[in-house]
Amino acid sequence: MPDEARILLGHGSGGRLYRDLVHDVFLAHFDDPVLARLDDAAALVSPGRIAFTTDAHVVQPLVFPGGDIGRLAVAGTVNDLATAAARPIGLAAAFVIEEGFEIARLQAICESMAATAAEAPVAIVTGDTKVVQRGAADGLFITTTGVGEITVDHEVSAAATAAGDELLLSGSLGDHALAVLAARGDFRFTLDVRSDCAPLWGLVETALAAGGEALHFMRDPTRGGLATVLAELAEEAHLGIEIDEETLPVSAAVRSACDLLGYDPLSLANEGKMVFAVARRRAADVLGALRGRPEGARAARIGTLTTDHPGRVALRTRYGTRRVVDMPVGELLPRIC
Amino acid sequence: MPDEARILLGHGSGGRLYRDLVHDVFLAHFDDPVLARLDDAAALVSPGRIAFTTDAHVVQPLVFPGGDIGRLAVAGTVNDLATAAARPIGLAAAFVIEEGFEIARLQAICESMAATAAEAPVAIVTGDTKVVQRGAADGLFITTTGVGEITVDHEVSAAATAAGDELLLSGSLGDHALAVLAARGDFRFTLDVRSDCAPLWGLVETALAAGGEALHFMRDPTRGGLATVLAELAEEAHLGIEIDEETLPVSAAVRSACDLLGYDPLSLANEGKMVFAVARRRAADVLGALRGRPEGARAARIGTLTTDHPGRVALRTRYGTRRVVDMPVGELLPRIC
Repeated sequence: MPDEARILLGHGSGGRLYRDLVHDVFLAHFDDPVLARLDDAAALVSPGRIAFTTDAHVVQPLVFPGGDIGRLAVAGTVNDLATAAARPIGLAAAFVIEEGFEIARLQAICESMAATAAEAPVAIVTGDTKVVQRGAADGLFITTTGVGEITVDHEVSAAATAAGDELLLSGSLGDHALAVLAARGDFRFTLDVRSDCAPLWGLVETALAAGGEALHFMRDPTRGGLATVLAELAEEAHLGIEIDEETLPVSAAVRSACDLLGYDPLSLANEGKMVFAVARRRAADVLGALRGRPEGARAARIGTLTTDHPGRVALRTRYGTRRVVDMPVGELLPRIC
Repeated sequence: MPDEARILLGHGSGGRLYRDLVHDVFLAHFDDPVLARLDDAAALVSPGRIAFTTDAHVVQPLVFPGGDIGRLAVAGTVNDLATAAARPIGLAAAFVIEEGFEIARLQAICESMAATAAEAPVAIVTGDTKVVQRGAADGLFITTTGVGEITVDHEVSAAATAAGDELLLSGSLGDHALAVLAARGDFRFTLDVRSDCAPLWGLVETALAAGGEALHFMRDPTRGGLATVLAELAEEAHLGIEIDEETLPVSAAVRSACDLLGYDPLSLANEGKMVFAVARRRAADVLGALRGRPEGARAARIGTLTTDHPGRVALRTRYGTRRVVDMPVGELLPRIC
């Protein structure tokens, strides 16, 4: 299949062109014996308790500093499994492609998916492709779905948290959202920010090893940002949350772009970060373990869970004042994931 | 959420509007305790061997006689699991919605998904929604992914077939494709055909009970139709296939529309049919079991596997001549699933 070729409607048929696309693009990159069987359903050996998660990806542009839609799709699904303490055991990838899409771009995105899957590590074991006419989709959408093995016996969820738990964040806020916006040309200035987009199962496994049953809760602050994760946690746990703006890791570039544009780093999407709630007695162990890995080098203690003001998140600002943190109402930044 | 309301970009955010959409539409229809937890990943109890399958759905129009994109999405995924002899244990649904889409239409489609899932039976246990700007998608795309429990110990695949196996088809050909084309207004005449779109786990379970280890292979003839299923089976099994046009179940309406339009019922997509290869000694038992269920009332013996002409499918026509059946090359009928 020549690289200058473009996707035709026929590539979405069940016929020969479809098979060529599957062989020349998908199987060429996603080298896995289960996928290569091309059965309608992939067979996996599974442990007793599995986690199951799906995400549609519609990011625009498809490629941005630090990642692309393929890396985002694989990392996003691996990270959602990780929030359930689940080791990824197989991914499914479904593509909706606009007629006329360059096959070379699709190849590059599949290469990035394969590299991210190898990094996770996980295999893409099943998939599907549909082609729609020009104008019926914006280039390419990818839905990834993951199955993972739940590796712990204790519950890891908002309901498992307790007052006194410490909140840890694995690194700086806002990099993904601002990298995508900058790549879209939304700013009148250049911004040197790369997306943090990365699969975090390795980091989470390290945190679980260090925290054991004291690790009560994990969630990745994607759409809606840290503000949404904390607002949901406070609500679901019926506890209050206190965080300190001074301790929030935010890069200088993101901080100044936010100041200029009026964005709040707390509401910006991240794609390679994890929030943890850990019983106080083990918080330092987990923080140390996170910092021992490159994805967690800038991990920080950002706050605590409290019996005060249950259901609400209070932020102590850099200026010493306090404000309530709520989840954003609508969409400030569409199509960043 | 008022029914005359429309989808806003903000419904795709991680914030309040997104939560309203999830509660008022998705949770209202998909009543399941695992889904209702709204965790990033659903936890399922799983047996030792699971099947895993994904499909993107881009059918146009979204509603057609006999079904809609929601019924299609659920049935398609259940049927792909069924081809692996897998009982569905959980579905994931990911929605890409165009800004401005009427929420009442989304409600109706979710209601149809819920009804089809109940019929399967299976629960929708996790999901995701993204909203794109007007013009960036054609209304609504739904990607469904399924996890199922493989219920048999013997292999059910092309490799398990043998010369002498009989081919059974669970009902008539072409209804889905022609129902969608007619609903699209592609014909200058009215056509009284309804899509066959239906979940087939119950039918497959019945066939497995009747056929046991003699049931060697199952596949649903969707995109590319029966022609593609048989061409792939012949190729993968390194066997020849003989089918007889006289025995192929095709309704009078589909037959005459095909004669008029030049379509071949063998190449048309079906969404509620299954092809079985069964050892001769048990073929009558399986056929009888299929006919005992409403989805299989028109089941027929359509051909045999043979050591002659390995890799090729030969059709004896109504006129007594023979022709080779190959899979369609490109796409005659885009966006029928």
